[in-house]
Amino acid sequence: MPLFDKPLSELREYRPERDEQPDFDAFWARTLTEARAFPLDVEFTPYDAALTLVDVYDVRFSGWGGHRIAGWLLVPAGATEPLPTVVNYIGYGGGRGLPHDWLTAPAAGYASFVMDTRGQGSAGSPGDTPDPVGGSNPQAPGFMTRGVLDPDDYYYRRVFTDGVRAVEAAAQHRLVDAERIVVAGSSQGGGITQAVAALVPGLAGASIDVPFLAGYRRATEITDRAPYGEITTYLSIHRHHEEQVFRTLSYFDGINFAPRGTAPALYSVAMMDPVCPPSTVFASHNHYAGPKEIRVWNFNKHEGGETFQVNERLRWLRELFKAGRDTR
Amino acid sequence: MPLFDKPLSELREYRPERDEQPDFDAFWARTLTEARAFPLDVEFTPYDAALTLVDVYDVRFSGWGGHRIAGWLLVPAGATEPLPTVVNYIGYGGGRGLPHDWLTAPAAGYASFVMDTRGQGSAGSPGDTPDPVGGSNPQAPGFMTRGVLDPDDYYYRRVFTDGVRAVEAAAQHRLVDAERIVVAGSSQGGGITQAVAALVPGLAGASIDVPFLAGYRRATEITDRAPYGEITTYLSIHRHHEEQVFRTLSYFDGINFAPRGTAPALYSVAMMDPVCPPSTVFASHNHYAGPKEIRVWNFNKHEGGETFQVNERLRWLRELFKAGRDTR
Amino acid sequence: MPLFDKPLSELREYRPERDEQPDFDAFWARTLTEARAFPLDVEFTPYDAALTLVDVYDVRFSGWGGHRIAGWLLVPAGATEPLPTVVNYIGYGGGRGLPHDWLTAPAAGYASFVMDTRGQGSAGSPGDTPDPVGGSNPQAPGFMTRGVLDPDDYYYRRVFTDGVRAVEAAAQHRLVDAERIVVAGSSQGGGITQAVAALVPGLAGASIDVPFLAGYRRATEITDRAPYGEITTYLSIHRHHEEQVFRTLSYFDGINFAPRGTAPALYSVAMMDPVCPPSTVFASHNHYAGPKEIRVWNFNKHEGGETFQVNERLRWLRELFKAGRDTR
Amino acid sequence: MPLFDKPLSELREYRPERDEQPDFDAFWARTLTEARAFPLDVEFTPYDAALTLVDVYDVRFSGWGGHRIAGWLLVPAGATEPLPTVVNYIGYGGGRGLPHDWLTAPAAGYASFVMDTRGQGSAGSPGDTPDPVGGSNPQAPGFMTRGVLDPDDYYYRRVFTDGVRAVEAAAQHRLVDAERIVVAGSSQGGGITQAVAALVPGLAGASIDVPFLAGYRRATEITDRAPYGEITTYLSIHRHHEEQVFRTLSYFDGINFAPRGTAPALYSVAMMDPVCPPSTVFASHNHYAGPKEIRVWNFNKHEGGETFQVNERLRWLRELFKAGRDTR
Amino acid sequence: MPLFDKPLSELREYRPERDEQPDFDAFWARTLTEARAFPLDVEFTPYDAALTLVDVYDVRFSGWGGHRIAGWLLVPAGATEPLPTVVNYIGYGGGRGLPHDWLTAPAAGYASFVMDTRGQGSAGSPGDTPDPVGGSNPQAPGFMTRGVLDPDDYYYRRVFTDGVRAVEAAAQHRLVDAERIVVAGSSQGGGITQAVAALVPGLAGASIDVPFLAGYRRATEITDRAPYGEITTYLSIHRHHEEQVFRTLSYFDGINFAPRGTAPALYSVAMMDPVCPPSTVFASHNHYAGPKEIRVWNFNKHEGGETFQVNERLRWLRELFKAGRDTR
Amino acid sequence: MPLFDKPLSELREYRPERDEQPDFDAFWARTLTEARAFPLDVEFTPYDAALTLVDVYDVRFSGWGGHRIAGWLLVPAGATEPLPTVVNYIGYGGGRGLPHDWLTAPAAGYASFVMDTRGQGSAGSPGDTPDPVGGSNPQAPGFMTRGVLDPDDYYYRRVFTDGVRAVEAAAQHRLVDAERIVVAGSSQGGGITQAVAALVPGLAGASIDVPFLAGYRRATEITDRAPYGEITTYLSIHRHHEEQVFRTLSYFDGINFAPRGTAPALYSVAMMDPVCPPSTVFASHNHYAGPKEIRVWNFNKHEGGETFQVNERLRWLRELFKAGRDTR
Repeated sequence: MPLFDKPLSELREYRPERDEQPDFDAFWARTLTEARAFPLDVEFTPYDAALTLVDVYDVRFSGWGGHRIAGWLLVPAGATEPLPTVVNYIGYGGGRGLPHDWLTAPAAGYASFVMDTRGQGSAGSPGDTPDPVGGSNPQAPGFMTRGVLDPDDYYYRRVFTDGVRAVEAAAQHRLVDAERIVVAGSSQGGGITQAVAALVPGLAGASIDVPFLAGYRRATEITDRAPYGEITTYLSIHRHHEEQVFRTLSYFDGINFAPRGTAPALYSVAMMDPVCPPSTVFASHNHYAGPKEIRVWNFNKHEGGETFQVNERLRWLRELFKAGRDTR
Repeated sequence: MPLFDKPLSELREYRPERDEQPDFDAFWARTLTEARAFPLDVEFTPYDAALTLVDVYDVRFSGWGGHRIAGWLLVPAGATEPLPTVVNYIGYGGGRGLPHDWLTAPAAGYASFVMDTRGQGSAGSPGDTPDPVGGSNPQAPGFMTRGVLDPDDYYYRRVFTDGVRAVEAAAQHRLVDAERIVVAGSSQGGGITQAVAALVPGLAGASIDVPFLAGYRRATEITDRAPYGEITTYLSIHRHHEEQVFRTLSYFDGINFAPRGTAPALYSVAMMDPVCPPSTVFASHNHYAGPKEIRVWNFNKHEGGETFQVNERLRWLRELFKAGRDTR
Repeated sequence: MPLFDKPLSELREYRPERDEQPDFDAFWARTLTEARAFPLDVEFTPYDAALTLVDVYDVRFSGWGGHRIAGWLLVPAGATEPLPTVVNYIGYGGGRGLPHDWLTAPAAGYASFVMDTRGQGSAGSPGDTPDPVGGSNPQAPGFMTRGVLDPDDYYYRRVFTDGVRAVEAAAQHRLVDAERIVVAGSSQGGGITQAVAALVPGLAGASIDVPFLAGYRRATEITDRAPYGEITTYLSIHRHHEEQVFRTLSYFDGINFAPRGTAPALYSVAMMDPVCPPSTVFASHNHYAGPKEIRVWNFNKHEGGETFQVNERLRWLRELFKAGRDTR
Repeated sequence: MPLFDKPLSELREYRPERDEQPDFDAFWARTLTEARAFPLDVEFTPYDAALTLVDVYDVRFSGWGGHRIAGWLLVPAGATEPLPTVVNYIGYGGGRGLPHDWLTAPAAGYASFVMDTRGQGSAGSPGDTPDPVGGSNPQAPGFMTRGVLDPDDYYYRRVFTDGVRAVEAAAQHRLVDAERIVVAGSSQGGGITQAVAALVPGLAGASIDVPFLAGYRRATEITDRAPYGEITTYLSIHRHHEEQVFRTLSYFDGINFAPRGTAPALYSVAMMDPVCPPSTVFASHNHYAGPKEIRVWNFNKHEGGETFQVNERLRWLRELFKAGRDTR
Repeated sequence: MPLFDKPLSELREYRPERDEQPDFDAFWARTLTEARAFPLDVEFTPYDAALTLVDVYDVRFSGWGGHRIAGWLLVPAGATEPLPTVVNYIGYGGGRGLPHDWLTAPAAGYASFVMDTRGQGSAGSPGDTPDPVGGSNPQAPGFMTRGVLDPDDYYYRRVFTDGVRAVEAAAQHRLVDAERIVVAGSSQGGGITQAVAALVPGLAGASIDVPFLAGYRRATEITDRAPYGEITTYLSIHRHHEEQVFRTLSYFDGINFAPRGTAPALYSVAMMDPVCPPSTVFASHNHYAGPKEIRVWNFNKHEGGETFQVNERLRWLRELFKAGRDTR
Repeated sequence: MPLFDKPLSELREYRPERDEQPDFDAFWARTLTEARAFPLDVEFTPYDAALTLVDVYDVRFSGWGGHRIAGWLLVPAGATEPLPTVVNYIGYGGGRGLPHDWLTAPAAGYASFVMDTRGQGSAGSPGDTPDPVGGSNPQAPGFMTRGVLDPDDYYYRRVFTDGVRAVEAAAQHRLVDAERIVVAGSSQGGGITQAVAALVPGLAGASIDVPFLAGYRRATEITDRAPYGEITTYLSIHRHHEEQVFRTLSYFDGINFAPRGTAPALYSVAMMDPVCPPSTVFASHNHYAGPKEIRVWNFNKHEGGETFQVNERLRWLRELFKAGRDTR
């Protein structure tokens, strides 16, 4: 993949106009209020993961619509005090996998909470959470257009709400320090992270790698790769829904969440990424309202920094929580 | 695509063991009973399709779960007597399209009823019918694994039920002769046709082209092409669900519907079809219990006979209805 | 396919310089004169298409060089007065197919004439018309370079001439109203339509979808997709024929035919079309001399508006012929 | 490409039934008689190829239908006696190229005659010979189905006849020893060679590498690769022409030419060749009536032995002509 | 990928003849003796991996030829007693990555030693170990044919020797219990594991997932996928080296190492694996001389059981070490 | 491949800034001095190539590090005087092949010397020369990153040095006129040619077709095609080596060699070449310091002018040596 988006020097300054409906905040306030009408009902069931340094809990909590959402909680074995905690969101298609897939944060001494993505988890890694809502319109294969004609019906309304509830669920465990929660994710997980960072006050940080779910229109114009390409597929059939679709998407656009985020954020972006093109990432980052850094990977596609970015995140978390600890 | 399945001489005799649960009939009887608990509520709304030889109605009726299913009804303009009628089901991904997409049967003097496939209609041709049920398990992109862990939840339970209700809906129009209804479809449409032919008594015929939704296990073993490949994708992630998945699928297998069909049937098959491999088609055909013919297209892939098969169908319908008329 | 051509706002104003030889009109006048030296000898043979609402004729007439060209004529059964008529040209590779492939216009009450494309009809849909002329130079597989070194020998000289003669042939049927003939086609069919619209006076309209055969040089520079890519293939071998080839092509360029067309025209274009890039379509449209409209499909590739464009055409025809009828 | 055809041990014994019409020999006798009614009219025009060790002539002669066929003749500079000569035929798509493409035989001391393939020469290497005959039926892109409904019209009738006439043309040059002519080619060139070896008596040898144009039915059944795949494409559209097409092809099948060849032959075959599958090569070789050898390349696709096979040919020619010289 | 290899029932019994040179054992004895002439010189350098539950060491030791090989050692923080240890080998192309990539075994309470693969580590995951030996013959891109003409020069002679030395290096750390070392790897890592299991006595176990480097000839005959395909590429050029190449490979064939392994082994295989076809895995497993189990993943390609196989390994290790502990 | 690089008019003026280290010349002077410390030891062994017009010698000489490099020398049979000579370098992956692959120059009366490329020769054409140096860092498959972290270790340091020594080796044959040596090559061969033209004084000419190994950074930014893509692959893994890698490559960049070349040069470039993009070729050409011409092939990919460019070279050589001869 050669460079195909704007040059890096332009990207660093790229702050496109945002396309936001006036009731954006009202929409989300109403959405969360509705969701919180269902009791959270968090269950933490001890789980034998054949591990000894880490205690594992199979988690269930009520997300959007009161639907039960699966997750994992991993804590360093023998911990007695509330710990800094990472709440993880997952990339497109995948599910929560198995507990040993989530050892990095615990190995660094943090609790690690993983939220399953409803409906997904049958590609890449296994999940256990259905999305009982089929949607109010025909959909292209995948999840991008499930309910896309109306913000109230849109799939990511449910997912982002689950994401907010996941933070609330994590905070209920006695070994999770609710004042030191960082949300984190890559690709779709990064997109959810960005939304949650805007919707949940008081987070300690947000780690957002090659985020998806931002800048939908530009994305469909410069790449045809899935999952943004699902929107193109849908509109190539439902030719008269263009404005309606982009109106819906504006409620779920990372570029609109970004200016509402205030926690310290660590972004990463890959310059040859055809899945989440760099201009959509920089647009989010540049609009982000909190303290922020961005790691740029020049020769990478959507894999971004991979293990090196994990390393960046580990060191950023160490600094973050060290600072946090100092000032508590 | 070279020949990759059994040779034609073997296929003509190929009648594999069927894998059928003892409550197959009970399952379907219960399913239809439940569906019929919802009133059918057919609406035929005149529609301006800019056509003059054909009258067009935008149809809505209640399918599985009382969900509203869209459709079209086309009748030769000026018809006054009930007509032989073709009820059409649609290939995977597509929707009911626009009325002028369905002119063949009316041009031959028949009424033409088209059933939208719930949830689909965002690839190939547009549809207007959502599937409000999201399913009880994570799913691979597409529809093949939506609810696949339990026959009660499986997507095609809803679709096949819609298919049965579509015949009932069509029969309510004054210009449809309920005793001269032929069901018809290609690929997924052929699979629905085969199911409906087993579930609805008294049909005048069934026209089944390169049918999908039959012989799932063999299909996943000799082709990796979508949509059968969605099952493979799902099982490549949910490795422990193999038996459960194939058990569910057995309730929706054309090979199990075939011996329950009694109306005269016209099948077609393509010898180089990697999407619906010929052995899965012959397995259905050879088990079919009614009078039957099969057209074999030697050098075709999944397109099968295309316009030539349409021609075969037109002439078969003419004979069928002529015979039907003679003996009424 | 992301957007790869000029932005829409530029395209709407895009009127590139035309590359036209001084004897363009003389060339075509001579060509048609030569062709008309052969008697047209139209035959309309009734054909049993197993249809009842439409009468079908298998047509033969003499095109370029007196070669016999096949076609279909469909007229609403029982028509007694000359009808508005659509003369259809076919996309690259395909042939006239079977009569039931051409029901849209008759269902709207018009006569429908279909011209087979000589030599083609062995890909997509079947045809019955050979091109007995092999050409005066080696050719790349396909038809784009057959005779491409000399305008007199070029394949499309024969095809466009056939197209003109097809209008003349249609006009000979008693149920065709020669003053209400619309020419129509998509892709190659759109290219032929555009040429015929320039070469035949007195047409009632021209319906030109995602037209091919226009702007050859730019096309080869921004896409490598067939069939324009056949020219690239040829020139990648015959490296010294570049000027000669583009000189020949200039006699067959839609951009040169466009300013000679005067009938009302309905164009359509797809913004992500890599086969007939939007700039080549807009170049034609913007140079077109008659009253014109263009439908823009933003998220489509070469399929363009498909069934929705058919709908657009049906409604445009209704207006066109209504207006026509009012003023007769 | 893994092994996909029969195993080598079986191939060595593989002699399939031949499918031959009773008038095969009559057809070819008539064809050659008709062609010879046109005077051969060979022209050898000296050509400045910027070479010094080799003298080059641009050749023209009359092939089938009296059409002028281009070629090259290369002879070692300063030769005075008639030389052993290799008549070369070219692979599918390509043309005669430039003289320096044909230096191997001259460098070994032989004359080298190259026959352009009519119509081809716009892919791979440039040619200069048109095929003025367009054919009596629509055709799939490429040359395999040009005229394929009737042996009299079939493209390879003209090409094989040209091949015979090329030997006669070569023999007219004073530096060509008409009693020491070897025909040679690879792929399509090998197919032509095999035909010419059957049609021309008195050849000194035939060098046939990975020959094409043999065993058409089996070829279409085990590979979908071009050019055999063009036949599949054609039959996938013209579904009712299957028997007619294979009947025509039987007149042009290397398996039917093979038992008519008597000159010593050197074959080569590649075990992983998806273009000319090994069973079609062995079928020809095993039916070949003259003294024969075959080189088997175990890990190659259609490239076969490439430069190593050239080496085999050079050494086989040296032995052949040494033996020939000894016994003259 | 449909099923393409033998059916499972046959595979369970598949024990092909082994192709082994008489000096196989002597070759390896000599190889290891030569390698051990270089002092091992293990260095364990504490490394700040930003982790707290695990102590990390950057490792260097001398492998084949005394070349320095990189690695990681991870031990549960605060361990004081020698621990059961997993020595990990890496899949083709990849390198040792970063320490947090290797947390599974430590999280289960074991030490984890990771050996970098010389020369690799520039695809998939980063490595730090060069292979200073370029080889004694031209090579196809990749590592499969580096030195393939002579067992003494072959790349995997060095790698397998490094693998043996890695076990010896691990055993030198005070927290590694030399009597409880399990070797483990997937794909190429599984191939190295299988070799080391044969060459190192006294191992506690071997965990071998979808192993590569076994059954070379059959592999090249049923798949063309890299890396086995590199051998095909090489032999497609060096056509006269076939026997020599397979003779060399026989010294490095898992099927020949298998009967020399005695430690308990856990294999896994994927039935749709085109990279390491199931017959090559079963051939190894069925020849394996120690106690053994195999997990079969029916619908997977080369990813095999992935996280589920990790789970299988964790539980198998727990049983293994529990048993081991009981009998110590 | 559509046009994807700068337009031709810009390319003709394109002279990008060069990125050159101050010790560029010192590096190469030291490198050659070190290499010349090994005696050249040229061996010319007569070789039976089954040719008669050309005498063939199997060549061996000592290149970088004293490693033995293979080659061919072909001279017109019976030559007695020193001849103008072409020293040929080979494209990426290939080897020296067999002598009959190199007949063009001898057929024009010149001696032809061919240098095998160390390590390569297992793709495209066979080679016989290993590269015994494996490199000082992990490498991506292929040769582009072997030793890429240090100019002293880099693979092309050895290859370019071999190239210089090849000229010296050729000059030692009595039939080679050391004052009339032209270096020549295409793609990688063109890159080596460009380097040698800068490093060897007194050459008679340089023929450089679609040269590779120039403008590395831009190349990785506008194409992802191998072999430049190997650099991208490497940097996508070794994310922290970017500056180090491009620093190394600057010592091997054709754009830095070009201003040091003084012999008359014939370049060629293809405008649709995605392997060696035209801007990298023009950058070299435009910086070239000697008399120069460039042939531009407008519709070609990396094949460039192929046989037509051979023709250009033959005629350019004839002029060059004629002029040379006149002034001797």
